[in-house]
This record gives sequence, structure tokens and C-alpha cells, in this order.
Amino acid sequence: MPDPLRPDMFDPTCPSRIMPIRFGDKWGGMILRCLADGPRRFTELRVPLHRCSAKVLAESLRALERDGIVRRTAYDENPPRVEYALTPLGRTLLEPLDAACEWARHHIGGILAAQAAYEGKAR
Amino acid sequence: MPDPLRPDMFDPTCPSRIMPIRFGDKWGGMILRCLADGPRRFTELRVPLHRCSAKVLAESLRALERDGIVRRTAYDENPPRVEYALTPLGRTLLEPLDAACEWARHHIGGILAAQAAYEGKAR
Repeated sequence: MPDPLRPDMFDPTCPSRIMPIRFGDKWGGMILRCLADGPRRFTELRVPLHRCSAKVLAESLRALERDGIVRRTAYDENPPRVEYALTPLGRTLLEPLDAACEWARHHIGGILAAQAAYEGKAR
Repeated sequence: MPDPLRPDMFDPTCPSRIMPIRFGDKWGGMILRCLADGPRRFTELRVPLHRCSAKVLAESLRALERDGIVRRTAYDENPPRVEYALTPLGRTLLEPLDAACEWARHHIGGILAAQAAYEGKAR
């Protein structure tokens, strides 16, 4: 099990995955985090998000684009280049996302202990 | 349409409903808010959450109980009394919940404008 103090939300075995705070759909928070440092191409996003199918990633990006969180830019180049970037509105989500990650970092141990106690009672 | 500056998350027409930050399942954040001021009985929770079926509310509460966010206490009285309350761990979620609500309060107008622009382009 990864160190609960160093959650890696890209790892499906990471306990931070159970955190009750979510952004958008399942992948929203991870996409935001991937775009925090600057624009990324679709294929670049697929590297850290390789557990998300291309179809689902495209749908998640479209939902974020529709909400004005992500901007999609198609450059008239050959081969065509499409980039995704956080909008100024999307950037404002990074602070509450960090707060949520911080909460998870501090309290994930408590949730795991509660789940173990609950399962123990249920048996 | 309600004033976007005064979101009422219990109102299904409230624009805050579209906010990309969620707690637990659909009703998690609302249950947390309902328990912020103290313990509540199941029937008391059903008043503000009357759009949530009894079955779904019970499931949501069980999920929060399993995660150690909510504590269920059955009092040996006649008629039986069951109360739900936030645990100390659950209380720590109120701050990021408030931050998420604050984000929605400030930015919901931007999301609505982005959605309208997106639908306009799509037509």
C-alpha cells in the first residue's frame, strides 16, 4: 500500500481514491492536475491517465470544455495539433482542489480505519 | 432562476447544482450541511432532503457511516429513536465544503455563461 501521507491519485491502489471530495466526473480532478502546469495535447494527457480509455477521456474533456474549465485549441498545422489548457475559470479550481487533496492527505487514515471497523462490525 | 449569488443547494433549479465539486455521492454534501448544526433523526433529514427517496437517503447515510463521516446512534426508547451526527472526522469536511460552496458562489455565473456559449457554438 502506498504511504497514505504521499497520495498518488493516478495510482488506483492509492487510498486517496476513496476521498469523498470529487471534481466533475471520475477523471475531472486528475485532468485538472495534469493541466496545472500548462497546455497538454490529448496524447500527452493519455500518459498519466492511461487507465482512462480514449473515449472516456475525450468525453471528460468535452464536459470540462462545456463548463468553461478547459479550453480546446486546434492549430492549423500538419499533422493537426490539438491542445487542452485550463481557462482562467479552470485555474480558480486549483485552490479548492489543493484544499481537497490536503484534506485527504490528513484524514485518509481515519477513513481507512473507520471502514475497517465498520466491516469488522458487519461480519 | 434563483440569484446565483445566493445558491440554495436544496433547490433542484439552483445553479450551484452544476458545481464541479462534489462530496461523496449526489446527496453527501447536502447531508453534511444538514448535520452541521447537530444530530438529526432520519425523519428530520427527510424534510430538507425530501427529493431524495428514503431508500437512497438510507444508503447515502450508510456510506457516510462506513467512511467514519457520520455516526448512527440507536437509543433504546419506545418508540425507538435513531439519530445521525457528524463525527469529528466528518466535521473536518465542513471547511472544504464551505470552500467549495464559496467557489460555486463566485464562479457559477462563469460556468453558466460558458455553457450557453458552448451550446450556441454547437447549434
